[in-house]
Amino acid sequence: MNIPKSNFSEWYNTIVKDAELCDLRYNLKGFVVFMPWSVLTMERMYSIYEQALQSRGHLPSWFPSLIPEQNLTAESEHIEGFVPEVFWVTEAGKNKLEERYAMRPTSETAMYPLYSLWISGLKDLPLKIYQRAQVWRYETKATKPFIRSREFYWIEAHNVFATEKDAMNQVKEDMEIAEEIIHKRFGIPFLFFKRPQWDKFAGAVNTYAADTLLPDGKALQLPSTHMLGQNFSKPFNIKYMDETGESKYGWQTCYGPCISRIYASLISTHGDEKGLVFPFELAPVQVVIIPIYKDNNKKKVLEKCEQIYNKLKNNFSVKIDDSENTPGFKYHYWEMKGVPIRLEIGEREIDSNSIVLVTRISQKKSKVPENNILDEIKKEGKTILETIISNADSIFNSLIFSSISMDSLKKILDEKGGFVRVPFCTDTIDGEKCAEDVKNKTHGNVRGSLFNSKEVPNSSEKCISCGKSAKIYLYIARQY
Amino acid sequence: MNIPKSNFSEWYNTIVKDAELCDLRYNLKGFVVFMPWSVLTMERMYSIYEQALQSRGHLPSWFPSLIPEQNLTAESEHIEGFVPEVFWVTEAGKNKLEERYAMRPTSETAMYPLYSLWISGLKDLPLKIYQRAQVWRYETKATKPFIRSREFYWIEAHNVFATEKDAMNQVKEDMEIAEEIIHKRFGIPFLFFKRPQWDKFAGAVNTYAADTLLPDGKALQLPSTHMLGQNFSKPFNIKYMDETGESKYGWQTCYGPCISRIYASLISTHGDEKGLVFPFELAPVQVVIIPIYKDNNKKKVLEKCEQIYNKLKNNFSVKIDDSENTPGFKYHYWEMKGVPIRLEIGEREIDSNSIVLVTRISQKKSKVPENNILDEIKKEGKTILETIISNADSIFNSLIFSSISMDSLKKILDEKGGFVRVPFCTDTIDGEKCAEDVKNKTHGNVRGSLFNSKEVPNSSEKCISCGKSAKIYLYIARQY
Repeated sequence: MNIPKSNFSEWYNTIVKDAELCDLRYNLKGFVVFMPWSVLTMERMYSIYEQALQSRGHLPSWFPSLIPEQNLTAESEHIEGFVPEVFWVTEAGKNKLEERYAMRPTSETAMYPLYSLWISGLKDLPLKIYQRAQVWRYETKATKPFIRSREFYWIEAHNVFATEKDAMNQVKEDMEIAEEIIHKRFGIPFLFFKRPQWDKFAGAVNTYAADTLLPDGKALQLPSTHMLGQNFSKPFNIKYMDETGESKYGWQTCYGPCISRIYASLISTHGDEKGLVFPFELAPVQVVIIPIYKDNNKKKVLEKCEQIYNKLKNNFSVKIDDSENTPGFKYHYWEMKGVPIRLEIGEREIDSNSIVLVTRISQKKSKVPENNILDEIKKEGKTILETIISNADSIFNSLIFSSISMDSLKKILDEKGGFVRVPFCTDTIDGEKCAEDVKNKTHGNVRGSLFNSKEVPNSSEKCISCGKSAKIYLYIARQY
Repeated sequence: MNIPKSNFSEWYNTIVKDAELCDLRYNLKGFVVFMPWSVLTMERMYSIYEQALQSRGHLPSWFPSLIPEQNLTAESEHIEGFVPEVFWVTEAGKNKLEERYAMRPTSETAMYPLYSLWISGLKDLPLKIYQRAQVWRYETKATKPFIRSREFYWIEAHNVFATEKDAMNQVKEDMEIAEEIIHKRFGIPFLFFKRPQWDKFAGAVNTYAADTLLPDGKALQLPSTHMLGQNFSKPFNIKYMDETGESKYGWQTCYGPCISRIYASLISTHGDEKGLVFPFELAPVQVVIIPIYKDNNKKKVLEKCEQIYNKLKNNFSVKIDDSENTPGFKYHYWEMKGVPIRLEIGEREIDSNSIVLVTRISQKKSKVPENNILDEIKKEGKTILETIISNADSIFNSLIFSSISMDSLKKILDEKGGFVRVPFCTDTIDGEKCAEDVKNKTHGNVRGSLFNSKEVPNSSEKCISCGKSAKIYLYIARQY
C-alpha cells in the first residue's frame, strides 16, 4: 500500500479510468463494463484459482443462472437474507411467466436440489463441485468498480461431506487455498476472521472470511467460507446411507472467492503514485520493448526489437511499442499500466549485444547480455513478487492494533484505520447491541475473532461497550 | 460418425445420462445442469478458442448481462429478430423497475454504445474485442441438451474496421479459426455457407455459417460470422475521423462460436456404440490406470500404479481406478466415458518393466517399456487425433450430394440425409417462396451457397422449385 491514505479514493478512480480497467458509462445503474486490461488479469486469476481447486479434487460445473422462486424460498434464513437483493425475471417474449425466476444471487438453491439426487451413499462423498459464474444482487449501497456492483464475477464451491469434521477440514482447506494464492501469488495480505453470529452468511452455522485492508485503512472482505452444517441438507433432503445402513443428512460447506473484488485489492495494495503494479504472473503485458531510434537507424533497431520479441514471446506476454510517441511518453504510459519489465533497445545495445532492462517497482536499470535475457527476466519476475509481498506485508502488519477503550479505538480508526483488537462481551447474537454501539460511536464494524487464535481476555478486561466482563477478543475495522 | 443413423437420438440421450454430461432434472424448462465430465472438456475448448482469438489480436472483455430495453430497440431488424426471445427483468427486491432490462440474447446492443465512445480515430481501429459469456433466449423449439437450450455458453467477438475490405478479411479470419480449431483440433468437419438473405442474422448484411452433420444426417449450425456493414455503426454512432479529417462510420463484423453446441457435435461425430470418443487433448481424463491384482500382490501393484501416475501427472490428466470393481467393469466404464488411453498394470508388467497400453478407438493392445511410456502416450495422442479426423472426414464427405429435382432431393434426404446441392433461382429475398416450397415438400432447409465456390449452374439448369432459369447452386439439408 504505497498510496497515501488520504488520496486513495482519488487515486483509485483515476487509475480505473486512465489504465482503462472499467468503463462506468454503461447506461444501467450499478453495472459496469470490464475492459481488456483488467479482464486479461482477472482471467488469469480465475485460471490460477480453478487449478488450485481442481488439484484438491473439486470439479467444475455450470448451473443455470435462473432459479425458480420456489427453490429460493426453501431455506428460511437464506431467503430472508437474499430476497431483498434479487432481480426477478417475470416476462419472456410476450408472455407473463407463471412463476418468477430469480437471477441467482448465489447458487445454493440452484445446486442443492440436484445434490439431493446425486448423493445416495458414502461412495458419492465427498462431493466437491464449483462453478465460475456471475451473480446478480440489487445492491442498495453505493457501488464502486470491482469492489461492489450489481453483477459480479466469482467462483462458488459447494461441498458435501459425511461428517462435521470432514466439513470443518474443508473450511481449513479453503483458507489454505486463500493463503497459497491470494497471499503468496497475488501478494495480498489478509486476516481470517470468524464472523460474529449477527454477521454470518444467511443460512450458515458459521462464516469465516478473509479481510484485507485498502490504503485508506478500511477493510475489504475477500473470500469467505461457510460452515453450513445441516442447515441446507435438511430442507433440500441431501442424505446418504452410512456403513450401517442408516440414512443421514450430509454436512455442507461453501466457499466464494470473488475475482472482481480480489482484483480491486490487487491493484490497491500494490499500486503507487505512478499507477498500477502487478505481480509478474498477473500482468496483462509482462515485458514491453521500447525501440530507441532516429530516422537513420529506425529499421535496424526495429528489426532487433522484433528478434528479441520472437525470442521471448513463447515464455512471456510481450509487446513492442513502435508507436510514434517519444520514448519518455512510452516509459510513463507503460509504468502507469503496470508492466513489470521494460526493455530498451537502441543502436548502442545492438552494438554491444546487450539490452537495457528496467523493472517497474525498483526503477533499477541494468544492462543484460542478449543471451541471458530470458533467464534474467524470469529471475526478475521472482524478485518482483518477493518485493511486493514483503512491502505489502510490512505495511499491513503495521496496521494491526489493540485497544481497551472506545475513545482510543476511535482515535486509531480516525488516524490510521486498520484492525483494532478489543475486549468484547460475546460474539453470539447477544453481542449485536454492543456492536451497534461501537458502530455508532466509532464508525467501526466488528469483523470477528481471529481464526485459530488462542488469545483470550484476562479476567480484569471489560467489554468496550457494555463494560461487562470480556469473554473474547474481537477485531474492529471500518469497512467497504 | 460411427453411430447408425436410425439409432442416433437414442444413443445421444443415453450417453448424456450414462456418462453424466448433463442433468435434465433442473426444475426450470429449457435449462439444464452441465456436469463436470462435459464442463472439463468445454472449459478446455473455451481456452483453446480464446487463445486463438488473442493470438490474432482480439482482447477479452466482460460486458453486463442485462441490457436496458432502450438499447435493444435501437436497430429495428435486430429488435424484430430477438425481442420474441427475450427474458425480461421487471422487478428488483421489492421494487417494480421503471424500465425493463433484457437478459442479453446477444450483446450487440450492450457493446456498441460503448464502442461509440471508444472509437474516434484511425488509431482506435481495428477494434477487436470478445467475451466468453452466457446468453439467454426464450426458445420455443424443442430443447435438446448442448444443442438447444434457453441458456447457452458461447464466445462473441465484435469488431470494428475502417473499411469494408478489412471487415471482410475478418470474416475470412473467423473462418480460418474455425478450420484450425473445430476441424483440425476437435476433428469436426463442416462446410461454410453464405446464408440466403431470408435466413441471416437479424441486422446483418450477410451471414456466413459453418454447418456440420450429426449421425442422423441432419445439419447442425456451428459458428457463424456476420458482416454487419454499417447497419449497426449508424444507429449506434460508431464513427472515426479518417486521414483527411472526414468523419466516417465504421464497418463491423461479429462472430459467435457456441461452445456448448460445438460440444454436442464433438460427442456425436466421434462417439461409437461403446460410448464417448475424444480427441486426446479434449478428454477430461486422458489416461486411466487399471491395477490388476489379487489379494497377495495388491499393495505391490498399487504402488507401481502410483509410481506411473506420478511420472505422468505433470504431462497428462491421469486417474488410477482403484475402486473395488472388476477390471472388466472398469474397462467398459472408462471406454464409455471416452478416456483415450488405458494402462493395465499387474504383476507380469512389474516383472518385465513394461506396461500394457490400450487405445480407446483402435482397441489395439501393446506392451510398452516403462521408460518409454511418456513418449508413447504422446505419440498415441497424435495418432488418435489423426484417426478420428480421417474417419469423420470420410463419412462427412460421403454425405454431400447433388440433385436437380425435388423428387430425388427428397429421396436423398429420406434415405441418407446430408447436404444436397440443387440449382436454385436466387438467394435474395425473392427466393424465399421457393425455399418454403422445398421445405414443405422435402422437410429440407436451404442452408445457402458454398462460400468461395465458383460453381454456377449452366444455362439449361432450372430452379428445382419454380422451374425458372437457375442462377445459383444452394445446399439443402434437414436441420436441427
